[in-house]
Amino acid sequence: MSEAAEASVPVLAGQLAAVGQRCYARGWALGTSGNFSAVISRCPFRLAISASGREKRCLHADDILTVDAFGAPVGTHRAVPSAETLLHVTIAQVRRASAILHTHSVWGTILSDVHAHGRGLNVSGYEMLKGLRGVTSHQHSEWIPILENDQDMPRLAQRVSDLLQAHEGVHGLLLRRHGLYTWGDTLEEAERHVEILEFLFETLCRSVVCGTTAGAEV
Amino acid sequence: MSEAAEASVPVLAGQLAAVGQRCYARGWALGTSGNFSAVISRCPFRLAISASGREKRCLHADDILTVDAFGAPVGTHRAVPSAETLLHVTIAQVRRASAILHTHSVWGTILSDVHAHGRGLNVSGYEMLKGLRGVTSHQHSEWIPILENDQDMPRLAQRVSDLLQAHEGVHGLLLRRHGLYTWGDTLEEAERHVEILEFLFETLCRSVVCGTTAGAEV
Amino acid sequence: MSEAAEASVPVLAGQLAAVGQRCYARGWALGTSGNFSAVISRCPFRLAISASGREKRCLHADDILTVDAFGAPVGTHRAVPSAETLLHVTIAQVRRASAILHTHSVWGTILSDVHAHGRGLNVSGYEMLKGLRGVTSHQHSEWIPILENDQDMPRLAQRVSDLLQAHEGVHGLLLRRHGLYTWGDTLEEAERHVEILEFLFETLCRSVVCGTTAGAEV
Amino acid sequence: MSEAAEASVPVLAGQLAAVGQRCYARGWALGTSGNFSAVISRCPFRLAISASGREKRCLHADDILTVDAFGAPVGTHRAVPSAETLLHVTIAQVRRASAILHTHSVWGTILSDVHAHGRGLNVSGYEMLKGLRGVTSHQHSEWIPILENDQDMPRLAQRVSDLLQAHEGVHGLLLRRHGLYTWGDTLEEAERHVEILEFLFETLCRSVVCGTTAGAEV
Repeated sequence: MSEAAEASVPVLAGQLAAVGQRCYARGWALGTSGNFSAVISRCPFRLAISASGREKRCLHADDILTVDAFGAPVGTHRAVPSAETLLHVTIAQVRRASAILHTHSVWGTILSDVHAHGRGLNVSGYEMLKGLRGVTSHQHSEWIPILENDQDMPRLAQRVSDLLQAHEGVHGLLLRRHGLYTWGDTLEEAERHVEILEFLFETLCRSVVCGTTAGAEV
Repeated sequence: MSEAAEASVPVLAGQLAAVGQRCYARGWALGTSGNFSAVISRCPFRLAISASGREKRCLHADDILTVDAFGAPVGTHRAVPSAETLLHVTIAQVRRASAILHTHSVWGTILSDVHAHGRGLNVSGYEMLKGLRGVTSHQHSEWIPILENDQDMPRLAQRVSDLLQAHEGVHGLLLRRHGLYTWGDTLEEAERHVEILEFLFETLCRSVVCGTTAGAEV
Repeated sequence: MSEAAEASVPVLAGQLAAVGQRCYARGWALGTSGNFSAVISRCPFRLAISASGREKRCLHADDILTVDAFGAPVGTHRAVPSAETLLHVTIAQVRRASAILHTHSVWGTILSDVHAHGRGLNVSGYEMLKGLRGVTSHQHSEWIPILENDQDMPRLAQRVSDLLQAHEGVHGLLLRRHGLYTWGDTLEEAERHVEILEFLFETLCRSVVCGTTAGAEV
Repeated sequence: MSEAAEASVPVLAGQLAAVGQRCYARGWALGTSGNFSAVISRCPFRLAISASGREKRCLHADDILTVDAFGAPVGTHRAVPSAETLLHVTIAQVRRASAILHTHSVWGTILSDVHAHGRGLNVSGYEMLKGLRGVTSHQHSEWIPILENDQDMPRLAQRVSDLLQAHEGVHGLLLRRHGLYTWGDTLEEAERHVEILEFLFETLCRSVVCGTTAGAEV
């Protein structure tokens, strides 16, 4: 880890805390749900991640700690890293993502359930898709995979890893009745992906009410 | 009551007022609905509770008063304690809860009506359940009992007491067309329970729209 | 008008402006919809009311002017009083209300349309009803009358007057596809009535989705 | 461009940034969606417009740049103008609008899809329509045209131009699964039109749930 990178950890922690508070304000990280991380360095691998059990309403830079490639805490921080740390580490490594955000919205929870039997949903035809990295037209077809929820984190991390390698183009994934994981090359990009995918989840769910479901084809 | 505990009453009152304002902001305590309490001491029993008829938008520490084990005001505060004080006292004593929060959301009101004939609803399979004290897996099955609403507080308090003794594992209960009571070992835990249960109520109600009701089995 | 009352006009104007901003924040007074008034004196009759065409987002005390019993401006304020001033004057006089608030929410708009053929709706069984002045039990039955919308204000004011004299117990009324009028003995009470009635409108509309409409019997 | 107009550009940029942040707060400009412009001068034609790819949450006056009648940047600002700049220029010229706002809400996205086959929807009978410039009665019938979305901006701008010339009375238009364009003689009026049209979109979509669709006749 370079000195420059080390110096940026407090800044990164403050930014992650601010993202967490904004997700809470939108209702995407109620209770202690949601967790947020950003890569500090690749070699050695170091990830800044929110501590377990913190309420996102008042998430503070002090609630962010550093873990290694095995998800083990590095340094003197007394907090326990998020229970889902291994998923963050996996996404950071397989996707080479710089920031990973996990939200837990009402709409994501519902959609992950409705489309669970199809193991995902296909979203196409929406202008909002253009906010996803590399997408240049609303005619893009985005596959959002859904994994069954699991409390065995090493097993779930392996399934996330397999999934990301099988589906190189995806920008996010849903855990059933649990929520969204998305990521980006920067923390700003990852937060934009949260907003875009959560917008699409809400739009797809609400479209059912209005008699149109053309947007999501399973 | 120890001197230390007495000293903390103004702090506790300020914290309860802040919880009330946050519940109002989320739309869970409109009008004068909602009431909030925290145990000051067990012996003698003293409870800090929001006064009757206060608007939660601008709830202030001065709107919190102290009552005894019979719900009668203690001290020189001129305000009348919440009409539902006896329910708070009962929950504090039967559950040995340290904080009791009552919210009155649109979704809780609707859900308490839809499942009234079953005297409650069973919620399982949601990751969000893990935010409830002692729950470690989404496969947990949470029973949320529903009681008929009643303006006779001693009678309703007795029914709450009976219910809590019959269902030791519950984390909250609904009064029909009225709202949620939940509690915690700390005020922070009680507020987390509010957020988790209100999230689940919204999710269950909205799921109906999207054609899935698997989450709530009566 | 007593000197004491005159002195309080700037304070009243500031309070009305704050109410307007809060209604805007909740989405109950978007665009230039919504208008808000409070009685300054009964003899001579003077009413403080929001000016026509003001955006409620940034409603300011300067946007409040004074009108007489005919809805005509009093004093040197250059603004035009709200187009619906006569309705406020009528409610202030027939009901002897001290504050009259008109909101324009999505749910009120929809409900006023759904129940227009019945010229109103009956709401009963909700604890929230107890927030209405004089209601002491959820078993109360509240009739909310609905009038056809009309751009002829003297004619509409006459119909409001007739309606209020025919239904002495009502706490509010809906104009079809237009919104809610409610009032109170104080501005605080009127704002509480807005919150309670808007809560009930949202609950009744959303209940339809969840398969229960027992709350509103026409 | 007069000196007076030149002097007002920083003020205009600050106002546009504030409008963008308010639209974000309401959920009408998530991700990098939404763009906002205002005419600086007619001769030569100069338009202040939000830069491409900016997040509206923290839109700042520095994110606003100046373009000419061809949508080409004028001056030393390094940012790229919004991809949809040509649509703004077209509306500013064909309608002689002074401010053009594009929002991207869930309800607008859904409604633009539901009514796409009819190439628009007719809205009448709502009091809220009176907030649109020149409308004096709720009995007004407002046609809201819907255009198929297109990534070819010159082609889409031509279709917008044709549409505005064919339908002189419209106050806004929808791009399918994309969002709303509306405008005004002042920035304040354009923002009011956003609020009114977004209110109507939400009301129309939600009305379907409650079993009434009388408000929108295709």
